[in-house]
Amino acid sequence: MNFKRYLPILQWAPHYSRNQVTSDLIAAVIVTVMLIPQSLAYALLAGLPAHVGLYASILPLAIYAVFGTSRTLSVGPVAVASLMTAAALAPLAEAGTPEYIAGAVLLAVMSGLMLTVMGVMRLGFLANFLSHPVISGFITASGIVIAASQLKHLFGIQSSGHNLIDIVGSLLSGLADTNLPTLLVGGGALLFLVWSRRYLKPLLSKLGLAPRAADIFTKTAPILAVVVTTLVAWALRLDEQGVRLVGAVPSGLPSFTMPSLEPSVWSQLAVSALLISVVGFVESVSVGQTLAAKRRQRIDPDQELIGLGTANLGSGFSGGMPVTGGFSRSVVNFDAGAETPAAGAYTAVGIALATLFLTPAIAWLPQATLAATIIVAVATLIDLPALARTFRYSRTDFGAMLATIVLTLVHSVEAGIIAGVALSIGLFLYRTSRPHSAVVGLVPGTEHFRNVLRHDVELCPKVTFLRVDESLYFANARFLEETVMDLVSREPELTDLVLVCPAVNLIDASALESLEAINERLHDAGARLHLSEVKGPVMDRLKGTEFLEHLGGGVYLSTYEAWQALTNRPAIA
Amino acid sequence: MNFKRYLPILQWAPHYSRNQVTSDLIAAVIVTVMLIPQSLAYALLAGLPAHVGLYASILPLAIYAVFGTSRTLSVGPVAVASLMTAAALAPLAEAGTPEYIAGAVLLAVMSGLMLTVMGVMRLGFLANFLSHPVISGFITASGIVIAASQLKHLFGIQSSGHNLIDIVGSLLSGLADTNLPTLLVGGGALLFLVWSRRYLKPLLSKLGLAPRAADIFTKTAPILAVVVTTLVAWALRLDEQGVRLVGAVPSGLPSFTMPSLEPSVWSQLAVSALLISVVGFVESVSVGQTLAAKRRQRIDPDQELIGLGTANLGSGFSGGMPVTGGFSRSVVNFDAGAETPAAGAYTAVGIALATLFLTPAIAWLPQATLAATIIVAVATLIDLPALARTFRYSRTDFGAMLATIVLTLVHSVEAGIIAGVALSIGLFLYRTSRPHSAVVGLVPGTEHFRNVLRHDVELCPKVTFLRVDESLYFANARFLEETVMDLVSREPELTDLVLVCPAVNLIDASALESLEAINERLHDAGARLHLSEVKGPVMDRLKGTEFLEHLGGGVYLSTYEAWQALTNRPAIA
Repeated sequence: MNFKRYLPILQWAPHYSRNQVTSDLIAAVIVTVMLIPQSLAYALLAGLPAHVGLYASILPLAIYAVFGTSRTLSVGPVAVASLMTAAALAPLAEAGTPEYIAGAVLLAVMSGLMLTVMGVMRLGFLANFLSHPVISGFITASGIVIAASQLKHLFGIQSSGHNLIDIVGSLLSGLADTNLPTLLVGGGALLFLVWSRRYLKPLLSKLGLAPRAADIFTKTAPILAVVVTTLVAWALRLDEQGVRLVGAVPSGLPSFTMPSLEPSVWSQLAVSALLISVVGFVESVSVGQTLAAKRRQRIDPDQELIGLGTANLGSGFSGGMPVTGGFSRSVVNFDAGAETPAAGAYTAVGIALATLFLTPAIAWLPQATLAATIIVAVATLIDLPALARTFRYSRTDFGAMLATIVLTLVHSVEAGIIAGVALSIGLFLYRTSRPHSAVVGLVPGTEHFRNVLRHDVELCPKVTFLRVDESLYFANARFLEETVMDLVSREPELTDLVLVCPAVNLIDASALESLEAINERLHDAGARLHLSEVKGPVMDRLKGTEFLEHLGGGVYLSTYEAWQALTNRPAIA
Repeated sequence: MNFKRYLPILQWAPHYSRNQVTSDLIAAVIVTVMLIPQSLAYALLAGLPAHVGLYASILPLAIYAVFGTSRTLSVGPVAVASLMTAAALAPLAEAGTPEYIAGAVLLAVMSGLMLTVMGVMRLGFLANFLSHPVISGFITASGIVIAASQLKHLFGIQSSGHNLIDIVGSLLSGLADTNLPTLLVGGGALLFLVWSRRYLKPLLSKLGLAPRAADIFTKTAPILAVVVTTLVAWALRLDEQGVRLVGAVPSGLPSFTMPSLEPSVWSQLAVSALLISVVGFVESVSVGQTLAAKRRQRIDPDQELIGLGTANLGSGFSGGMPVTGGFSRSVVNFDAGAETPAAGAYTAVGIALATLFLTPAIAWLPQATLAATIIVAVATLIDLPALARTFRYSRTDFGAMLATIVLTLVHSVEAGIIAGVALSIGLFLYRTSRPHSAVVGLVPGTEHFRNVLRHDVELCPKVTFLRVDESLYFANARFLEETVMDLVSREPELTDLVLVCPAVNLIDASALESLEAINERLHDAGARLHLSEVKGPVMDRLKGTEFLEHLGGGVYLSTYEAWQALTNRPAIA
């Protein structure tokens, strides 16, 4: 057993230096300050009591420090996973009830189990089937749904729904009940946060702060909004004005929580847990890879599954909610100079201290402030220019992206992601089932062959070189037969057909039968079939089949060799 | 509107010669004689009254002559589609009841609608997703299930079930009730048919018959078994001995039948109708293509969908059952010298005459005789050597084939086919998600580049040529990033990386982002990314993207050009 693979902590802990300790400690303090409001806010978004967000930011961070391969990834509750948690639990129980909270625990445990098992079985590649356009469309649409879902907290009204249509409908009908003090607090926080994103950094720089410090300080601005609005709420007794506060939070560290073992609940949440796991993993790995590349480090996606899986198990068993590697917190951690995963462990200590000592103050925090921090945070997720970019590059990718966005907005997050994946796989199969092919000729003065329609090339009568630009497999085997027979019926003089195969990465059993059929039909028509540039792995397979025995022509290493042999022209050299 | 496309009859009817009329008429007589017992038998297999098989062999043949593109395909009830019909209708009603018969009519109409719509929308390519190994495994397993299901008629006992386990179990428990006269009739017919398959043709040749005539006469042997056993049953009043006969058949031509319009039945049969349509289409097209190729003719798969679709509509509206192009009858039609689809129309007339005048005689036909003809017919479908052949060539294809066979045998035909398709698509995606790649070098004295591990090639320090053997798309985009970064981390001296792209048939939006990332990371590492042998269609897409602007290196038409430019070696010529 490879301990270093399964315990990446063994790779860095033995060389952990004093300098690194200092860097990690500084980063941890900054991330802790940023994480407190974020954790509370995302718990709220998931329909959970605010302290659950804190619980989910203690044990998971410590565990990830042991099992994770990214030096700087910071795990915890994130916006999209919280939205998916809320959507998954909505049919199960009323938000905030004990059954609902137990459901969140179970989701974290199930997600943890799934990720860990996938990691041990090295199934990380499955996440690749979430294409860039689908994941980007999904995150944009989720951002829009999340922002809309928080408006009710800003206006202090009741509303519900897990897709844009329901949310907006419910919001409009409740708008008459707007609570003005809530709107003032929430709107004020929102304006401050928007302002600080845009103007605080230049201001701080002007005041003489180093650019990096200014940057980090700007990113922790939410804590300022939290402190000020909490003080205002306490001083003015805003709860008596109808402003909803976070309210009494159990103080003390989380205790061991046993997840439900009810099979019906497990099967009800299985699909949701899988989607939360895969989406969270993709988000986490792309953040981790981006940060690792900046410092010439590497992350191991399969081990990341184990890191995230164990972190989720830790979250569930300590009364938390599904967690994953978050973008904004990881960037802050990175920019603040974290050098090893120990920074995450120190952050866990910071959050634990907050849970122990700050809960009386948190009780006075207006929910509208948290809603404002969420809206500002998810605004960065919405990437509309990506739509235009994808549209320009590929209609196919755009189609999958648009389907994901539309279904996420009008139906549900789960329908959106499933439709996106199914559509992108379907479109890929469709594309490969009708491959591009080209008759090629010799580029004069070289040994290189290109498409006769695009390049000025030499041809040879009676010998046709056909390049097929796809692996030959069941979906296009019959298409190949039709292409070749069409070509042959158009050229009655043909004596030799060379199938140029540099793009053929695979010939499966169906395609082999089609090649046999082509060979036989060409033979009947008095022509020979040849192959050229067959790749090593493909050739290995063909050896030992009857096809090679039956083949009317030869197999040439290069197309130029075939050209020389079949046209009887002297070699250049 | 292209009339000739949608009405292939316009292509041959205007030139229909007297010679062709004669050939077609002779073929029609022979096929009619063969088709009568076959039609009755397959209706029985589908759990329908025997005359339904005759109804399904009149109008469909006439319609296919107008809309079909194969000159020699003969449509009608076939073994596999009949088994699938029985499996589809079993949950709906008791076999033979009016609801059951109405269900068969509806299946034919739905299948007809689906095929016609697919034809008009040119969706024939969808059938390609049934790979050769899956369809071959499916037909083998269906043949076994069909043969087993007919044993009850041979033994004259009751039994039921739509998979091998149920059928054999039910058969064993009923064996004590075997009816001896039935077994004698059925066993006798079976022995005669097996004998005639093996020895009748040599015998006839010895007696001086021309080989082709001997062949055709041998294939119509079932009619002899039918005539003899019918006479025996009538002469000995075998029905009084417990031998089950076909019984009273309504005489006269089929009349117009209105299918059920109950939405619940439609939705219940939708999946079955689709599977029957697709499997029937695949079977039909492969038979049609094989026969067409022998005479240098072509068939148009999309128009074939319309031909089969309208034939099924005709079958349904005239009280029939799902039909498709059958292998054995088409081969007989072809061998008997049919030259145009008119032969099918003449056959329809022959079957209509039989329906009008032979029904009193058919009433005395023992069911055991029909069971014997089915068993002998499906024995040719079972192709066990194909399993070994597929196993040797490709474990992946074999896996999909085996799953299809096992599920068809132990569960149901529908589960078998669905599992086979899903598994073959899944395995294909898995293979493309982990593409083969190779560092390549120059084959000395040529301009050709091959794998350094397989060939003795020239290399150049600091410049690496990496050939990726797959289209770059979402499923392998991240894999590409990992491959390249692994390579770079192993070669610290590297200054230039050339991605050799002859096998890259597609770069989707996800892969484009990965290439951007690779380019950027190489730049950070002080190296340049180049591309070579990018194909026309791929290059067209890349033009206009930011990737080409950001690209650190160049794009070379051929890998040899890149070699010359980057290694500063003189050209050969």
